[in-house]
Amino acid sequence: MPRYRLTLEYDGAPFRGFQAQADQPSVQSALEQAVKAFSGEVTRVHVAGRTDTGVHALGQVAHIDLVKTWAADVVRDALNAHLVPQPVAVLDATEMEGDWHARFSAKGRAYRYRILDRRPPAALERGRVWWIKSPLDVDIMQAAAQRLIGTHDFTTFRDIQCQAKSPIRTLDRARVRREGGEVWLEFAARSFLHRQVRSMTGSLAEVGAGRWTGEDLSAALEAADRKRCGQVAPAHGLYLTGVEY
Amino acid sequence: MPRYRLTLEYDGAPFRGFQAQADQPSVQSALEQAVKAFSGEVTRVHVAGRTDTGVHALGQVAHIDLVKTWAADVVRDALNAHLVPQPVAVLDATEMEGDWHARFSAKGRAYRYRILDRRPPAALERGRVWWIKSPLDVDIMQAAAQRLIGTHDFTTFRDIQCQAKSPIRTLDRARVRREGGEVWLEFAARSFLHRQVRSMTGSLAEVGAGRWTGEDLSAALEAADRKRCGQVAPAHGLYLTGVEY
Repeated sequence: MPRYRLTLEYDGAPFRGFQAQADQPSVQSALEQAVKAFSGEVTRVHVAGRTDTGVHALGQVAHIDLVKTWAADVVRDALNAHLVPQPVAVLDATEMEGDWHARFSAKGRAYRYRILDRRPPAALERGRVWWIKSPLDVDIMQAAAQRLIGTHDFTTFRDIQCQAKSPIRTLDRARVRREGGEVWLEFAARSFLHRQVRSMTGSLAEVGAGRWTGEDLSAALEAADRKRCGQVAPAHGLYLTGVEY
Repeated sequence: MPRYRLTLEYDGAPFRGFQAQADQPSVQSALEQAVKAFSGEVTRVHVAGRTDTGVHALGQVAHIDLVKTWAADVVRDALNAHLVPQPVAVLDATEMEGDWHARFSAKGRAYRYRILDRRPPAALERGRVWWIKSPLDVDIMQAAAQRLIGTHDFTTFRDIQCQAKSPIRTLDRARVRREGGEVWLEFAARSFLHRQVRSMTGSLAEVGAGRWTGEDLSAALEAADRKRCGQVAPAHGLYLTGVEY
């Protein structure tokens, strides 16, 4: 029973997140329907990082098991053909050993958050960036972001509905920089809590806007209290950029 | 009667081009309605380069005349407020002398064309790039593009419905390069013929795919015969990036 690793790009806008839910469009159902359409097989798609409603992916990783063996490139092309007109593309398909698992074998996840900080609203990048009317101070945000690196109780920065057993996570990388007219925040960790990236981003935006100091951010983190989180950045600015194995 | 220069960004997808047409959504009508909503005045929007259906803009320039004088930033913000939810943003408004004209004072126009050359289709950038399944040779395209620079009869590369009196134009710049996973073609000229950029791009794609040589491109140009044009690249990969005065 061959197992295929799938690298995925998708626009999160039309989906109620990655995970299949009854009567709701999801990336998972789109993929499972495409698998059935091309192979006739009913399979479950396993994914490295379940993305929320509206969150995009540039390098999501999933796997499927099929009964019949196909050349991996045939799996990629056939899925892409059947995914039309959904905004989901299989960038790569590779046959893997049966003990490799998209979720459990993953050693790291990387996310990017895009903010458009200018007075006029987003036109071309609407639905792809978080529009903030006032300019942000990127250097101050970059300095403050370093306070989040390391192993911490991230209760302040996780959704109250987060189902992870422990709020302790290790943030490996946090970088804030200007990219064209936008501010890009990039984070990497073995794993993230629910809405952790959007919560950290929203709080770092408070710092960039001058409403919080770096010390305020540290105090919020140390309080381990969800009520101390700044705003939570909207889903449509967030991209799962890659998964490490 | 103050005249305001407007710098515009828009997503061309929902519009039947820039120019107002009866019962069709256009960028011009969206702007004229926004002007009326904020000022009560019925005005005509004049534009540097009329874009076709589906063509985007990052730096289109237009002007309006108003009876009442407003601070330019108020014009910008009020138009943006009334343009919601249309994907059109006024990036800048500046008061100009009355003899300055968005179209007639323009000394140059610059366009970018984006091609995604990979086997999997576009997901996130769908509607923003031209998807070509096979990789293009960018170096060969860049070399061939130089053959188009200068003053030529561009009949081969203009739409048969082009209404310009002369097919002679001077192409000042043509550059083809890789940008991330995409191929970007950038052109600048005092003015362009109807569909000239898309016609040149489609023909350069023939060169990049290896179906045409650089000599074939020169021969097509010299023939001054529309039937010698390669494919015409689709509208949704084209961006008006700026206007020079």
